[in-house]
Amino acid sequence: MLKLRNIEWIGDAEAGHLRLLDQTRLPGEEVYIDCRDVLSVWEAIRRLSVRGAPAIGVAAAYGCVLGVQNAQDCTQALDQTCDKLATSRPTAVNLFWALDRMKRVEPVTVTELWSEARGIHEEDADMCHRIGRNALALLDRHISSSDRGVLTHCNAGALATGGIGTATAPMYLARERGRRIRVWVDETRPLLQGARLTAYELVAADIDVTLICDHMAAQVMREGRIGMVITGADRIASNGDTANKIGTYSLAVLAKHHGVPFYVAAPSSTFDLSVFDGSQIPIEQRAEDEITDGFGMRTAPEGVSVYSPAFDVTPHGLIAAIVTERGLIEPVNMQMVHQVIGSA
Amino acid sequence: MLKLRNIEWIGDAEAGHLRLLDQTRLPGEEVYIDCRDVLSVWEAIRRLSVRGAPAIGVAAAYGCVLGVQNAQDCTQALDQTCDKLATSRPTAVNLFWALDRMKRVEPVTVTELWSEARGIHEEDADMCHRIGRNALALLDRHISSSDRGVLTHCNAGALATGGIGTATAPMYLARERGRRIRVWVDETRPLLQGARLTAYELVAADIDVTLICDHMAAQVMREGRIGMVITGADRIASNGDTANKIGTYSLAVLAKHHGVPFYVAAPSSTFDLSVFDGSQIPIEQRAEDEITDGFGMRTAPEGVSVYSPAFDVTPHGLIAAIVTERGLIEPVNMQMVHQVIGSA
Repeated sequence: MLKLRNIEWIGDAEAGHLRLLDQTRLPGEEVYIDCRDVLSVWEAIRRLSVRGAPAIGVAAAYGCVLGVQNAQDCTQALDQTCDKLATSRPTAVNLFWALDRMKRVEPVTVTELWSEARGIHEEDADMCHRIGRNALALLDRHISSSDRGVLTHCNAGALATGGIGTATAPMYLARERGRRIRVWVDETRPLLQGARLTAYELVAADIDVTLICDHMAAQVMREGRIGMVITGADRIASNGDTANKIGTYSLAVLAKHHGVPFYVAAPSSTFDLSVFDGSQIPIEQRAEDEITDGFGMRTAPEGVSVYSPAFDVTPHGLIAAIVTERGLIEPVNMQMVHQVIGSA
Repeated sequence: MLKLRNIEWIGDAEAGHLRLLDQTRLPGEEVYIDCRDVLSVWEAIRRLSVRGAPAIGVAAAYGCVLGVQNAQDCTQALDQTCDKLATSRPTAVNLFWALDRMKRVEPVTVTELWSEARGIHEEDADMCHRIGRNALALLDRHISSSDRGVLTHCNAGALATGGIGTATAPMYLARERGRRIRVWVDETRPLLQGARLTAYELVAADIDVTLICDHMAAQVMREGRIGMVITGADRIASNGDTANKIGTYSLAVLAKHHGVPFYVAAPSSTFDLSVFDGSQIPIEQRAEDEITDGFGMRTAPEGVSVYSPAFDVTPHGLIAAIVTERGLIEPVNMQMVHQVIGSA
């Protein structure tokens, strides 16, 4: 059962504050940050103390409430707050989406803003639950015996959302229903979100977690230990091609070779229907030192080149289904995407 | 061109000594250990300052010379030396092979023992060269343009041998001939031998090296950047099934999916013809803390299980050819293995 509270509002609207789990201290320390002003929320987002698109949106929404508490002119205070928070992580689409939504609140009062932030938070938690319920059927389909588990990559978990996560949602729901399902988590180099975050949150929820290095997945599949793979998604094209954390595509290819079904769990907001297919999604490079100096020590020689794509694109043909809060997209193709996601 | 000298005898037989590159300090520092007695060689092997099956054998052979320098009774000194060195790394087959060979030297004099150690060293270097020449034809076959490189895993390099390595041998020979070939090296979690050792030795030889995380190989292959994959081997069965560092099998599956040929480079001594196929090769587990506390910091939560197979077995059907010092085994099957390796 999910016990951790990565984003929590403490107290009432007028005098309450935001409490965030500092994800930069995980897995070693469970430290909470009490944010009582906009600057502390801004810093928490900027320092990645709170991360994951939905979680950033929720935190920013609560940040707006903090910005208007005790303000003389709530409208002006809200504008200033939104301007400030928008600079915390300029590439986070959900951040702007949440701030825009807060700006549309009428009348601009602390209570109304708090109510809207609460709404964003609850909607996110609800979306996670719906994805979880839809994905639970897949666990039932593929994880029938205790010697097969489910493999996930990176962190599409509770820590990244205001609820029970996306890829992790069925794991939490299964546990809630008393089912013990083994979850295989890969480290996810270079930043180790699998080891540091996903393993952390699942262990905290009393779920059986086995950690592996990224390149061990093939061997574990070959040994028949994986019943299905499920990951999150950063962006999904009209035809179902899915951009996600680097390493996802590798798992999809390995899963296909071993006859293991590969699933993606993502809210409908992840679909970008203006993008025809994966070839139109540009892949950025990440900083070299994440690989060469990742563990507080230099692990590669000077003079080496580094190639570090931030994510990869898994072709829709390798994806057995995409699990959304609106239902399963199965099989994954343009027609089914439009049928489930609509032209929204 | 290979410039590093990981194992070197300095001076003459009677008064000389063994100089080893301390691989535990790589890639940060290039520190040499001057071994003037048996104990220092024993420590160097035990602490993994010298590692890799062939390199350990060569170092132990020179250790025998040190053990009889200045001895009253050379035969007795040799016996004591061999007994001591045998305890330095009790699972290293090459260690025992080299010590057995030293014990058979007649007459037991410093000069004769030095000559035998020198012979073991030179034979190893020669074996690497032969593998390199045989593998060079594969580079010519698959790396025709400068936008395609060769991918390797872990360290089957000069640092592991008394010569230019096995998987790395064609890279050194190509460089020697003025060809600039890009070598892609994966980190090889958990111990990062790819990043720490292979990248180090190739950069030191002025070869173009690009480092990636282990799960990025699929994406790099998909982008058409890999012309071939070549790795070493720990043990090869009669039918060509190949045990090697964990992650090798993953690369072989990914290579097949992308139409990239996958090769193994290994001396004929790696074949174990008493083993029918890969299913008879047991796979040990490595220590959990190599993954959870790998680099002086905890990167996984307490309470997590860890699965860490030391190696995996790549089925012969995924291997385009095995490159030995006796020639190519191509295609890889029992008949071809016996034809090239014989019943030795």
